[in-house]
Amino acid sequence: MVRILMIVIMETPATGEQVLEVEAWIRKAGLEVHRSDGADRTILGLVGDISRIDKSRISMMPGVREIIKVSSPYKLASREFRQEDTVVYAGDVPIGGKEVILIAGPCAVESEAQIDSAASFVASAGARILRGGAYKPRTSPYSFQGLGEEGLRLLRNAADTYNLSVVTEVMSPDQVEIVAKHADVLQVGARNMQNFNLLTLLGETNKPVLLKRGPSATIEDMLMSAEYVLSAGNPNVILCERGIRTFETATRNTLDLSAVPVIEHLSHLPVIVDPSHGVGKREYVAPMARAAVAVGADGVMVEVHPEPCEALCDGSQSLTFDQFATLANRCRIIGTTLGRKVAKGASQ
Amino acid sequence: MVRILMIVIMETPATGEQVLEVEAWIRKAGLEVHRSDGADRTILGLVGDISRIDKSRISMMPGVREIIKVSSPYKLASREFRQEDTVVYAGDVPIGGKEVILIAGPCAVESEAQIDSAASFVASAGARILRGGAYKPRTSPYSFQGLGEEGLRLLRNAADTYNLSVVTEVMSPDQVEIVAKHADVLQVGARNMQNFNLLTLLGETNKPVLLKRGPSATIEDMLMSAEYVLSAGNPNVILCERGIRTFETATRNTLDLSAVPVIEHLSHLPVIVDPSHGVGKREYVAPMARAAVAVGADGVMVEVHPEPCEALCDGSQSLTFDQFATLANRCRIIGTTLGRKVAKGASQ
Amino acid sequence: MVRILMIVIMETPATGEQVLEVEAWIRKAGLEVHRSDGADRTILGLVGDISRIDKSRISMMPGVREIIKVSSPYKLASREFRQEDTVVYAGDVPIGGKEVILIAGPCAVESEAQIDSAASFVASAGARILRGGAYKPRTSPYSFQGLGEEGLRLLRNAADTYNLSVVTEVMSPDQVEIVAKHADVLQVGARNMQNFNLLTLLGETNKPVLLKRGPSATIEDMLMSAEYVLSAGNPNVILCERGIRTFETATRNTLDLSAVPVIEHLSHLPVIVDPSHGVGKREYVAPMARAAVAVGADGVMVEVHPEPCEALCDGSQSLTFDQFATLANRCRIIGTTLGRKVAKGASQ
Amino acid sequence: MVRILMIVIMETPATGEQVLEVEAWIRKAGLEVHRSDGADRTILGLVGDISRIDKSRISMMPGVREIIKVSSPYKLASREFRQEDTVVYAGDVPIGGKEVILIAGPCAVESEAQIDSAASFVASAGARILRGGAYKPRTSPYSFQGLGEEGLRLLRNAADTYNLSVVTEVMSPDQVEIVAKHADVLQVGARNMQNFNLLTLLGETNKPVLLKRGPSATIEDMLMSAEYVLSAGNPNVILCERGIRTFETATRNTLDLSAVPVIEHLSHLPVIVDPSHGVGKREYVAPMARAAVAVGADGVMVEVHPEPCEALCDGSQSLTFDQFATLANRCRIIGTTLGRKVAKGASQ
Repeated sequence: MVRILMIVIMETPATGEQVLEVEAWIRKAGLEVHRSDGADRTILGLVGDISRIDKSRISMMPGVREIIKVSSPYKLASREFRQEDTVVYAGDVPIGGKEVILIAGPCAVESEAQIDSAASFVASAGARILRGGAYKPRTSPYSFQGLGEEGLRLLRNAADTYNLSVVTEVMSPDQVEIVAKHADVLQVGARNMQNFNLLTLLGETNKPVLLKRGPSATIEDMLMSAEYVLSAGNPNVILCERGIRTFETATRNTLDLSAVPVIEHLSHLPVIVDPSHGVGKREYVAPMARAAVAVGADGVMVEVHPEPCEALCDGSQSLTFDQFATLANRCRIIGTTLGRKVAKGASQ
Repeated sequence: MVRILMIVIMETPATGEQVLEVEAWIRKAGLEVHRSDGADRTILGLVGDISRIDKSRISMMPGVREIIKVSSPYKLASREFRQEDTVVYAGDVPIGGKEVILIAGPCAVESEAQIDSAASFVASAGARILRGGAYKPRTSPYSFQGLGEEGLRLLRNAADTYNLSVVTEVMSPDQVEIVAKHADVLQVGARNMQNFNLLTLLGETNKPVLLKRGPSATIEDMLMSAEYVLSAGNPNVILCERGIRTFETATRNTLDLSAVPVIEHLSHLPVIVDPSHGVGKREYVAPMARAAVAVGADGVMVEVHPEPCEALCDGSQSLTFDQFATLANRCRIIGTTLGRKVAKGASQ
Repeated sequence: MVRILMIVIMETPATGEQVLEVEAWIRKAGLEVHRSDGADRTILGLVGDISRIDKSRISMMPGVREIIKVSSPYKLASREFRQEDTVVYAGDVPIGGKEVILIAGPCAVESEAQIDSAASFVASAGARILRGGAYKPRTSPYSFQGLGEEGLRLLRNAADTYNLSVVTEVMSPDQVEIVAKHADVLQVGARNMQNFNLLTLLGETNKPVLLKRGPSATIEDMLMSAEYVLSAGNPNVILCERGIRTFETATRNTLDLSAVPVIEHLSHLPVIVDPSHGVGKREYVAPMARAAVAVGADGVMVEVHPEPCEALCDGSQSLTFDQFATLANRCRIIGTTLGRKVAKGASQ
Repeated sequence: MVRILMIVIMETPATGEQVLEVEAWIRKAGLEVHRSDGADRTILGLVGDISRIDKSRISMMPGVREIIKVSSPYKLASREFRQEDTVVYAGDVPIGGKEVILIAGPCAVESEAQIDSAASFVASAGARILRGGAYKPRTSPYSFQGLGEEGLRLLRNAADTYNLSVVTEVMSPDQVEIVAKHADVLQVGARNMQNFNLLTLLGETNKPVLLKRGPSATIEDMLMSAEYVLSAGNPNVILCERGIRTFETATRNTLDLSAVPVIEHLSHLPVIVDPSHGVGKREYVAPMARAAVAVGADGVMVEVHPEPCEALCDGSQSLTFDQFATLANRCRIIGTTLGRKVAKGASQ
């Protein structure tokens, strides 16, 4: 099927020469043109890789009335490029298949005891992947910035002990190598979603990338960022909805759960939800995590801390062990209802 | 328990006289003052009905450094005013209790056959309340504006035939009487959420009011609008999340499901979700409706049309009969999982 | 010039019959179709009054791939409908011509002394129109709601004494008659921008309407609301930018000054700016008012109060007399710079 | 003057022991506590470096009812830290003093001829600083990404020829050294405003940093990002308003001009405005640039291109030479009106 990607509408009084000039320009840019001459005006349909042309240049050519973008300029991330769902493996854990994956752990790795305790519990409750920050992006330069490489080692050890995979954030290009050495999945934080140097570098690794939606990013923007990773050669991208910035102040961000069915419609990539950062308050995390499973997410990532009151980071949004165990159970039942599956932990 | 509602922080070099003047002003305004003299500055805590005083006036008095609002100025709508959940009766259908209520029907009442067919089906699938617009607020003056009173009659008849209650929109003060005559619940549309004349008038009726969140309204704004109805004497208010306006364009609005647990925390009023207007596209309605049940909503309102392609209004967001039947089933299972209940229809 | 308003792109494998069916449906809806057969697909251009057709209906017809809206469905408000600028007369004051009009006065009319004092001063400083609320929409039911009809009389008297025109808000259909009796311009508040019953009624009067932009309304939404008034027969609409709701909390709203050149591009209607409600804090009002003149607004409306500290409403955003006099002077110089004109008051 | 930065409100029935425990925790965290015992509850005022403590931890201690942040956690960037305006020197050009600085140039450096032509013209029209991207952050991986180091050299040469300073973007930590070698001011793009690794590194250089506001960043967020640079030792930060993301689609972003007086109120740092990226369409750039001068900005940065239609990047928002000359003249007159100054170019 030939797909028209952009439409150029010529002015009614555009001359034949003007039309030919526009056609020529487009062909020179490497695209096909499908010309349609109507009773009183000409419309040109563009087919090909519109990602390489500058829409605003055509719009300035004489005789051009308007340009209309029919489809988005991402390609490799689109459902049209690949019909079947992509399954990304975090170590041996498949994300994007029949199973809904629980990802849990503290906001930041603080000590061996803390991360070991968290890993032990979340594994027993059904989590398959351990999360925890070693490098922490903080709005304030005076806040705890993470344990760095030592944190990565503690995280890896704890995960290995309890048979979990590891996801952790990489904040800048120079951290990619060291994080990739310890983690199964490299997380790109919301504030870095359009850090294109970082994305390109991650595209050159073979590690799965967990790409968080930026607080002011549209779903299309997120897919364009995924395209950076994919086009650099790494097909393993997991998208993560974590809330967008709106005028509402009762929650930290507004978690946009409709992003899940929208992404499922537009892309073959797996999509998970992080309700902890989305709502920012412990009491709202569990309801939104349940809703994430109900809406069809491939995974849910929540913050769990042995002692939320002692957390060095984001304690007020971390679940206690008991709260996580209850939540995991409910996610399991809702997932099953919808024909999916959530792992049982050792304790079930 | 005495509750401090506002705090006035005096400047460090504020004179004793300035403090006394502020205290006097506050007492004259009918509030209690709790004065706390610290080592180097005085702080005043205000107790009482802060809804009647103008914060900006105090902030302009000499010696005042800052005013901090501790709590919101709504009272009757707050969980503190009433601890237990309020149950509102739509006819004989309880909203806010153990049961999760399905509300369904076409966007607009178009004909006797259409509304009868819709009522018959949604009743058989488990809906307890029939929706349908007789007066339609449309962005364009050239769009179908509804059948008016005739629509109300058709709606009532169809509902009575299938033992359903009726909810329908009232757009302006002069429609209150006629709509109240035919409907069990009077809906205030999103664009009218701060139409204070309408709210006050509805507060003087005894009919339940379904108050939709405005696209730029915070949750606090919505509770303030509920306060208009409650303070005018009508305790029967149902809140409805239906999406807020954000920069995302993939959906019509961004459905803020976190509003459900937030409202449950702040208020005793029941809260339902309308995913049809929130997402604006049929394929995203069912996932978000399931998520609404999972997040804890007291009801879900969706648009269902016998022939969406022929709908005079919002056809592209209406579910078909089959889609609604499947959705009702899934909501029933998810609701049960969470210890709630969803009615079975005659057909189950 | 024939103007294509909407484009229907057919699927590549659409049958000739499907195309004909779509064409027939469109013609039946009263529009012309311009068919363009490309090498591998057909594109239909629609010409006519697209405001009367439902885009979503076409999108559900077999063989249709996508619908693209080329232009907005407002007509009478568009620059294409009328090329030259519209000048609206507020009494004898022209808005939309060469002169930049200053509109000033208190948030609410509180007493004869207050409004007389305000009118006297703002007239002497160069204002041509007096503002002041008699009916006040307040977020809280417990706040001061205005003096009602008595306020209208006081406002009119004060204006007449100092040769000013009067603009004041009308909150609901039943207030239209009484407000129209006393005021030269009827203001529709931001919360009522999509109160369609009110707009239609105002369209049936012959009084100028000052339409404030809703906090979640796009510029296109505002032009659609203007269309309600225009299509009901009243050509005298003044648009007013007053801030939109965003995530920023340092100001009450985010005043979108770019709306001024955008509206000037899209519409022939005059546009003014209200910085007082946009920023919500006195110290930011004057800079934004100056910017409004620099950006090309046809008028600026600011709140001025004899004693802001004693104001019953929004005192913290009201300018003092001195501040207004300084501002008026600066607006005059900036306006002159740009080839416009701002009235001198008696005191200059 | 002692400044209370945070307030802890204890529950009414909090025990004396609980209060002491909270006090002890705060003191251990290095802050002073000012205790105020009211008739029925205790309030604690915190003084000191609240940036180092975690608000959520206190909120979880027994007996604590609520925490209220009185002031923002930035310090070095605040007006309270430094009363007088900071002037930052871009080479020998002072930003933040009496002069309003015009910064102009193409979106991207494309060739020696292009940048030389642009530099020559903007200098002659009154610009003091040349802008132009050598490294371009692009939403699409397929778009032109800039000439890199060669672009930096061309930019520097062109600027030197016409006696201009140079500002250009640095996208990642590894580019800091090379960009600092060629430019007078290092620009941090909007998408990198919270790239904390980059900010910290820039804080360790002595080059001025032009920090652009992120599309979802509040003004407070921007000041926190400035704090990263300042606290790392570099006092030379220039803030830049360039539009925030809102629901409005008529412009690329919504340029928040009220940010200028707000920043002036909160901070001593200079602030400039970039209307080109804010509005995204050439015809709206000049009115908004004029408004930026009228609102009090310390500088205005606009895109100017010898042949906008041939631009490799953002041509549709670039001004032509003529348009820039006219704009510079108008800015000069408006600036003068407000007691400021805008340089005349050689051609005046």
